[in-house]
Amino acid sequence: MLAPAAEALGIRFSVLAESADAPATQVISEVTVGDYTDYATLKAFAETVDVVTFDHEHVPPEHLAALAEAGHAVRPGPQALIFAQDKIRMRTKMDELGLPNPEWATITSLADAEAFAERVGFPFVLKTPRGGYDGKGVRVVEGLAEVDEWLRETSPLLAEEKVDFTRELAVMVGRSPMGQTAVWPVVETWQQNGVCKEAIAPAPGLSAERATAITEAILTVAGALEVTGVMAMEMFETAEGFLINEFAMRPHNTGHWTQDGAVTSQFEQHLRAVLDLPLGSPAAREEVSVMVNVLGADHEDLYQPYFHVMAHDPEVKVHLYGKSVRPGRKVGHVNAYGADRDAVLARARHAADFIAGIDPDPYPDRPAPVDLDALSAEAPALEKDPR
Amino acid sequence: MLAPAAEALGIRFSVLAESADAPATQVISEVTVGDYTDYATLKAFAETVDVVTFDHEHVPPEHLAALAEAGHAVRPGPQALIFAQDKIRMRTKMDELGLPNPEWATITSLADAEAFAERVGFPFVLKTPRGGYDGKGVRVVEGLAEVDEWLRETSPLLAEEKVDFTRELAVMVGRSPMGQTAVWPVVETWQQNGVCKEAIAPAPGLSAERATAITEAILTVAGALEVTGVMAMEMFETAEGFLINEFAMRPHNTGHWTQDGAVTSQFEQHLRAVLDLPLGSPAAREEVSVMVNVLGADHEDLYQPYFHVMAHDPEVKVHLYGKSVRPGRKVGHVNAYGADRDAVLARARHAADFIAGIDPDPYPDRPAPVDLDALSAEAPALEKDPR
Repeated sequence: MLAPAAEALGIRFSVLAESADAPATQVISEVTVGDYTDYATLKAFAETVDVVTFDHEHVPPEHLAALAEAGHAVRPGPQALIFAQDKIRMRTKMDELGLPNPEWATITSLADAEAFAERVGFPFVLKTPRGGYDGKGVRVVEGLAEVDEWLRETSPLLAEEKVDFTRELAVMVGRSPMGQTAVWPVVETWQQNGVCKEAIAPAPGLSAERATAITEAILTVAGALEVTGVMAMEMFETAEGFLINEFAMRPHNTGHWTQDGAVTSQFEQHLRAVLDLPLGSPAAREEVSVMVNVLGADHEDLYQPYFHVMAHDPEVKVHLYGKSVRPGRKVGHVNAYGADRDAVLARARHAADFIAGIDPDPYPDRPAPVDLDALSAEAPALEKDPR
Repeated sequence: MLAPAAEALGIRFSVLAESADAPATQVISEVTVGDYTDYATLKAFAETVDVVTFDHEHVPPEHLAALAEAGHAVRPGPQALIFAQDKIRMRTKMDELGLPNPEWATITSLADAEAFAERVGFPFVLKTPRGGYDGKGVRVVEGLAEVDEWLRETSPLLAEEKVDFTRELAVMVGRSPMGQTAVWPVVETWQQNGVCKEAIAPAPGLSAERATAITEAILTVAGALEVTGVMAMEMFETAEGFLINEFAMRPHNTGHWTQDGAVTSQFEQHLRAVLDLPLGSPAAREEVSVMVNVLGADHEDLYQPYFHVMAHDPEVKVHLYGKSVRPGRKVGHVNAYGADRDAVLARARHAADFIAGIDPDPYPDRPAPVDLDALSAEAPALEKDPR
């Protein structure tokens, strides 16, 4: 999805793809097929471009450090990316920066787990520090036996308290090497089985004070880690405030709404940031923007449903990724925008689920649209997002 | 510029390019290099796709007819495209449809020219019926000697009265094979030396009655010619009404504002139309959208000016085409939008001309922004565009 932004700005764009049929090869003319874990491949690719950037965090950090050492512009740089790659280092860094972490501990023995359970009780959350995403590498454990089992395979593990949150939030920033930053409005997200399913921008009923605190937090992280490009910060909102959950140092699912709902999309901003161009405005263009993911379900053919979806709603924006369908796989998303939040949410849900072939009934865990009136009553300081 | 729209919808997109370094090859992964005037090349390309469409009108009509005859989906079809290719056939058709043409005549002899000059006087406009664009193939003639000179090279020629217009307007429609249509707001355009330089959407001060009449006219043409895809109609506005100037049966410069200013861009709409998908909403997203072309001038390097342009205006949207710079060549455009028309126009002009390296002073013919108050006084029926 970086390709259209590069095209608009007349910037030549090459991709190092894992395979000749990777989705990116469908839309980028300059493709090198190769293994991103092989340094010689990375180095040869880097020689052909001015700036190297990423669409995932799994490139070995020692290779990135070697590329940077060899004089290649690697953005974000390895010094920043290591924190997105290693959740224990990130938790440590957040504590250093005085930012709101959940209770956490590094677990290398059953004694560690026992001590942590004494602090927060069971169940708690256990994570592999590296390589997890979309709910993979994350378990909720009920007792020491489960910890023991996983610890025999992987050590260290990261333990985190199971946060009693009211909802999940996310925010994104763009930051350039010169240090310019731009933060988009905070969004409300909903995860289904550990996978992001929906985002609403701006987060309904979020107080101006909390939005400012969240904005300050992501700016603190971006500055301290010298992030270049865009970065996402996912949070739990609690009765008292917010706790940081995870980071991604790349364009992120919770920012897809910006393609149709913000002056500058996260993809254009990422390019501008890694090229050290002045950043674009992160302002929302509409009162409400909603993104709903198309998650693989009954339909193998995602094109045929267009005839209904487009006729039903001529204003909805469909984005598909050219991926083959597998159950629960993110194969696209739908953006919608407008003034009436409930209506916009219903439109985006209908389009995304109709394309995927999901009957909305089997989703009893899907929340009703947030009751804005009730939120307003709780939070009398309800104001527009301050940015 | 169709490529990003195809990517978003997950539609595979191939191009038959004139040369291996054509700009389209930079952004489309599936490229065939070949001669679009060679039937065997066209036929072989058509075999590889479901629908064939065009980004110019110069493919030989007999080849298109043969492709359609052979069962290929050619959209727009040859029966429509012939009218965009041949200006005399189009004038004849507009007369048949009762639409407002300037005075015109087919000129095959000096006697024809003399008779036409008796009707409209000198100077008048002389055009080659085929192949002209951006002011090429068009001359203003002052006397019979000039007609004689051109007629020795080319016959027939199309003569048209030199219209005493107040401004130029343009409108675009999308139409699908099933006959669905969607018309964007009418725009005001400004041509410089016969080349489109600016478009303002919606056209300032245009009365609702005239906007409706223009919308009805383009729908009449689209239906009568069974157009598929998008079509642009350029007009002269006069004290009494409007006169049709030219047509283009493809995404058009006067519709570039839709990329950032309309719910559905002309590029997405063209794809939806040629695929016979339901059309997207053509509604404007902003009170005012402005497009200003980047025309080749002093700068060979169009990237370096980004540092000023993007810092100066974080909301302006830059689109460059990856073309080499030649004087006056369309190498990109800038879109801006907002509520204050004069401010939006000034922003887009500044960005486009700064990128190109044009000092605004040497353009004494550039009009000041339209005086909306004066227009309102003339046209008390000033209303919002009815769509």
